[in-house]
Amino acid sequence: MTQASLFNQIKTKASFLCVGLDVDLDKIPPHLLKEEDPIFSFAKAVIDATHPYAVAYKPNLAFFEAYGLQGWNAFKKVIDYLNAHYPDHFTIADAKRGDIGNTAGRYAKSFYEYYGVDAVTVAPYMGRDAVEPFLAFEGKHAILLALTSNTGAGDFQYTEEKGHLLYEKVLKTSLGWENADRLMYVVGATKAEALLSIRKIIPNAFLLVPGVGAQGGSLEEVIQNGMNSQCGLLVNSSRGIIYASRGSNFAEAAALEAKTLQTQMAEHLKLSGLI
Amino acid sequence: MTQASLFNQIKTKASFLCVGLDVDLDKIPPHLLKEEDPIFSFAKAVIDATHPYAVAYKPNLAFFEAYGLQGWNAFKKVIDYLNAHYPDHFTIADAKRGDIGNTAGRYAKSFYEYYGVDAVTVAPYMGRDAVEPFLAFEGKHAILLALTSNTGAGDFQYTEEKGHLLYEKVLKTSLGWENADRLMYVVGATKAEALLSIRKIIPNAFLLVPGVGAQGGSLEEVIQNGMNSQCGLLVNSSRGIIYASRGSNFAEAAALEAKTLQTQMAEHLKLSGLI
Repeated sequence: MTQASLFNQIKTKASFLCVGLDVDLDKIPPHLLKEEDPIFSFAKAVIDATHPYAVAYKPNLAFFEAYGLQGWNAFKKVIDYLNAHYPDHFTIADAKRGDIGNTAGRYAKSFYEYYGVDAVTVAPYMGRDAVEPFLAFEGKHAILLALTSNTGAGDFQYTEEKGHLLYEKVLKTSLGWENADRLMYVVGATKAEALLSIRKIIPNAFLLVPGVGAQGGSLEEVIQNGMNSQCGLLVNSSRGIIYASRGSNFAEAAALEAKTLQTQMAEHLKLSGLI
Repeated sequence: MTQASLFNQIKTKASFLCVGLDVDLDKIPPHLLKEEDPIFSFAKAVIDATHPYAVAYKPNLAFFEAYGLQGWNAFKKVIDYLNAHYPDHFTIADAKRGDIGNTAGRYAKSFYEYYGVDAVTVAPYMGRDAVEPFLAFEGKHAILLALTSNTGAGDFQYTEEKGHLLYEKVLKTSLGWENADRLMYVVGATKAEALLSIRKIIPNAFLLVPGVGAQGGSLEEVIQNGMNSQCGLLVNSSRGIIYASRGSNFAEAAALEAKTLQTQMAEHLKLSGLI
């Protein structure tokens, strides 16, 4: 999916919500554990209930990988299901991959072609040749970690060189890479104050913003500092939506949480004149 | 496996060779493609032929992941085979994972417990809470990317803060993390000159050193600058060994290349008085 199509979807749905699919068998409604494939059953129900309010879904690979082959199989089924039933939704494999040239190319091929996602999150530490292979596919996007929402983000991402921080260097350097127009960036909602300076470096790129909700980030601040003329935001919520209830009403509860966020997003899109 | 056991294996085998299993169906001997599971058949033959000369095996996950469920299944079979037939060999999942707290814990559990490897390579960009979960398992090791062997390493790893480079900061900072004694580090053989200063920061840790052979790193220099009193080195070779021949003699050719490296290693271990 191109960024222009993504913006069209955002306008159509009046939403820039990404639902994070962090499927944890210890947290899903117990009655689903009897199903043949509880991971997929849970994800499918959440998708069916939340799709009117979301423009993107982000399965976190760690949760799927933790269940071995069963988990990978469920991941494939989730992406297949999304592509078959909701092809207008943007799909992100939150995999945070990062490896050198020939190896990165393997990962890219696997996620884009075998699984069929629109985007993959990628780590910057190994530099250009770990990321460019993810940018070599038309309509596909690498989402580069820039400033993450976790506490450990402070360990290295604020490393200061000649007055510039490492995450700023990551942003600036990446602009010189081949097919840099296919790059998006991860910026945590818990670092919303940094969005103003980030937007000076990358005014046009889409940002994937985790950390609203359970992690304490503010949707208002993210919008105020990070929205651009193409919206430019995909705000992710995972636990706040998918684990809103552990009862048999879990899907309805997820839909309600998603709708609440979508309603706030719609207001801001209207206020900004984007819809 | 503890680091003391690993050192014992190094002494017993007179080798600190790690064989990288980057299984690429486009490069393996064509006659293997007729097998039911060509990835596993190739890896098994290489392992059976090279095990007397190696102390460790490092499947690179990207190559396995590229083949989807078939690849993951083959990866599990490779580790199961190693654990069943060669339990004294150290196994490394070269996965370069990096994700926050609860998610990192999922990855760690999957690789250590479901697949049963001894170590996983991990990326440092997200900081402490992306790595510590990989250090919470006794006898298991996180191998942290420090200074990598690829050309893109220069993009961010040499970022200079107050006279110190980012990879040095990664090394120093990581020493303060919980269970830091279970850390090992990736330092590329193409950066052998940096090993002297690296050894001042982490005199005791094991280093996983890729880049000898195809990538142009020098084994002599790595040993000269990086060896410590417990050897402290696992030198990896992938393509130079596993693709030594594409004929029906591929396993013997791989063994020959592994033996050549092992012979050089044995000489240095003797010269250093370690065996």
